[in-house]
Amino acid sequence: MKVEASPVITLLTDFGTADYFVAAVKGVILTINPQVSIVDITHETPPRDIESAAFTLLACYRDFPTGTIHVAVVDPGVGSARRPIAVSAGDHYFVGPDNGLFSYILDREASHRVFHLTVERHFRQSVSPSFHGRDIFGPVAAAISRGTELGELGPQIRDAVRLAPLAPEKLQNGTLRGRIINIDHFGNCITNFTRADLLNAQNRQLLVNGRVIKAFRRFFGDKSGLNEDEHGDELFAIWGSAGFLEISVNNGSAAALLNAKRGDAVTVSE
Amino acid sequence: MKVEASPVITLLTDFGTADYFVAAVKGVILTINPQVSIVDITHETPPRDIESAAFTLLACYRDFPTGTIHVAVVDPGVGSARRPIAVSAGDHYFVGPDNGLFSYILDREASHRVFHLTVERHFRQSVSPSFHGRDIFGPVAAAISRGTELGELGPQIRDAVRLAPLAPEKLQNGTLRGRIINIDHFGNCITNFTRADLLNAQNRQLLVNGRVIKAFRRFFGDKSGLNEDEHGDELFAIWGSAGFLEISVNNGSAAALLNAKRGDAVTVSE
Amino acid sequence: MKVEASPVITLLTDFGTADYFVAAVKGVILTINPQVSIVDITHETPPRDIESAAFTLLACYRDFPTGTIHVAVVDPGVGSARRPIAVSAGDHYFVGPDNGLFSYILDREASHRVFHLTVERHFRQSVSPSFHGRDIFGPVAAAISRGTELGELGPQIRDAVRLAPLAPEKLQNGTLRGRIINIDHFGNCITNFTRADLLNAQNRQLLVNGRVIKAFRRFFGDKSGLNEDEHGDELFAIWGSAGFLEISVNNGSAAALLNAKRGDAVTVSE
Repeated sequence: MKVEASPVITLLTDFGTADYFVAAVKGVILTINPQVSIVDITHETPPRDIESAAFTLLACYRDFPTGTIHVAVVDPGVGSARRPIAVSAGDHYFVGPDNGLFSYILDREASHRVFHLTVERHFRQSVSPSFHGRDIFGPVAAAISRGTELGELGPQIRDAVRLAPLAPEKLQNGTLRGRIINIDHFGNCITNFTRADLLNAQNRQLLVNGRVIKAFRRFFGDKSGLNEDEHGDELFAIWGSAGFLEISVNNGSAAALLNAKRGDAVTVSE
Repeated sequence: MKVEASPVITLLTDFGTADYFVAAVKGVILTINPQVSIVDITHETPPRDIESAAFTLLACYRDFPTGTIHVAVVDPGVGSARRPIAVSAGDHYFVGPDNGLFSYILDREASHRVFHLTVERHFRQSVSPSFHGRDIFGPVAAAISRGTELGELGPQIRDAVRLAPLAPEKLQNGTLRGRIINIDHFGNCITNFTRADLLNAQNRQLLVNGRVIKAFRRFFGDKSGLNEDEHGDELFAIWGSAGFLEISVNNGSAAALLNAKRGDAVTVSE
Repeated sequence: MKVEASPVITLLTDFGTADYFVAAVKGVILTINPQVSIVDITHETPPRDIESAAFTLLACYRDFPTGTIHVAVVDPGVGSARRPIAVSAGDHYFVGPDNGLFSYILDREASHRVFHLTVERHFRQSVSPSFHGRDIFGPVAAAISRGTELGELGPQIRDAVRLAPLAPEKLQNGTLRGRIINIDHFGNCITNFTRADLLNAQNRQLLVNGRVIKAFRRFFGDKSGLNEDEHGDELFAIWGSAGFLEISVNNGSAAALLNAKRGDAVTVSE
């Protein structure tokens, strides 16, 4: 694993884009390594919502070049005892707080290593108690982009904080119980069902918030197998671009129709 | 027309900035061509609003360097039979769905060519049915930025989808009937009247949503010729920075005062 | 002070990100200097709010590399007699309207020079009356990034517009009267008190909107010295990452609890 000459650093935070926060992180990075390309993933993660950020990162990190350094800062415990960490996984790097943000990536990438960031000379000159994005994570990402090995940043650890895994539960009667893990800008409801989960689910139907969804479609324009449900809506399920089953409706918001929110249960039965 | 050593790719979508969508497109582009500069035009086009995106692109593409590649993805028909296209026009390139997004540019740039994207080896390894921004348009833009000729991407076509042209209608009594084509962040109402349309309109006055506007101003601070209307508001018309006549008010939102929305009629009579 | 080979230009505006405005400025800059790195500070400054933009710029400009050129455009007087200026201060450059935007930086950086932009060959070919970001400030910043000296852009001036200084007022009874100068995305209320202001304030307590705040904390997770106030809330004061005293609450919005808005008075007494 070799860092490219013109490396990419991505940023994923709950900072919003109205304040100086994101700019300060970028300024610090560019001061250390002016050659880096900085890409925003998003700064609109709901404040303190670690699971949402973890999903968003999972859904796109593999689209970036090998050697990309992903900085994620959703950090309700900033200033407390939670550890700052750097991760190497699947030919990518990750830098942020040890609170589960990189959990789904650790689950997916069998080959990974996690390091506790303790070597303060890679931090900003003075570290504020409330802004580790600027003072620790940004500078450390910039150091990695210049070739610093993770082993130089602190000791390896094996007890990184993990979220509950992203997998549906199999009930005794064969029903699979999952949940909505994200609702996107268009109102599509992304579930935690993958193709592997539904390999043997013939004649499957989904139940979400009291509504039954029977239509499975290949793409948004596809009308095959589509029936209006008893409410006259054309809700359907489709394999989404992040690899998970999504619940959608043409030209509208499935989330609004279903009155759905992240965390709502979705069951698949035959 | 020669692509620069350090080419620019712009992105214009209705994806919003809260999800992984924009980042995935950027990651895919940077994986193919790490030398490219990526610039966001906007990702806040109202969902599925092709006309709004077409106007925004028209208003700024010429400010970018020659050879810039503009990727626009407002794509309600994704996954259906609508064609993916690449366009060469006015020393710029454009990549996106064939649904009218580049219509105003084709109207303006007499010298243009349109190609149907069919050569799949320039696409992402697997193409999802719902995310052609990541899987077709981003990779094709990156290929163009590395020197791929449009003719290598698929056959030339001459029947690209066109929107109704951006020009006011001339009524028999000499009145010009136009419309509001955009409302900006400050509440300015951009109409489809250009200087050429109003060359012969002396003593002109505008009628919008039942309000008469007589004041024409050179710039925002200019008080010349300004009269409060019968409502006590200081609405005025001004030549906007995109080359169209705009309806504005000092330190406030003309759209709010006029209760205006995109598409509302604006007539000019003498 | 020498401009780097790969210079940084930052942008800070009230343009929002839904229109073509920001893209047009970037396109113009990249046309003049394709080697530049452009970083957005924010485009969500409340429309026409010069003080808010001035604070945001103050809070992060020093995090950028030496030689960075900061373009700030919050410009209610565009097209009127207000002057366009360029500033050299503290090894950074600043370009924008002469309306106080750079006021706090001039206060902080004793060594500074201000120039009135009058040499039109550095402007865009045609200057619109309403969009100096694209037509004057962007092109001038790009010229500076290519090595143009500020003295080539117009005459030096010594009467730049200044805002009221960012400092609390000392009342006769020893009480310090300050104010809330910014409310951030998380609802933290940033005051204009610095460490220097409170050096001699032992046993200090803050009064904001009728609420007394006695708890001072080192970081967000710190529980030391924390008492619920008479309302059961755990409001506390903390030294924020911009160097000012902030009023915060764990996992919530202090601004909402205090019903606070920018400009509200904050007093410190013993």
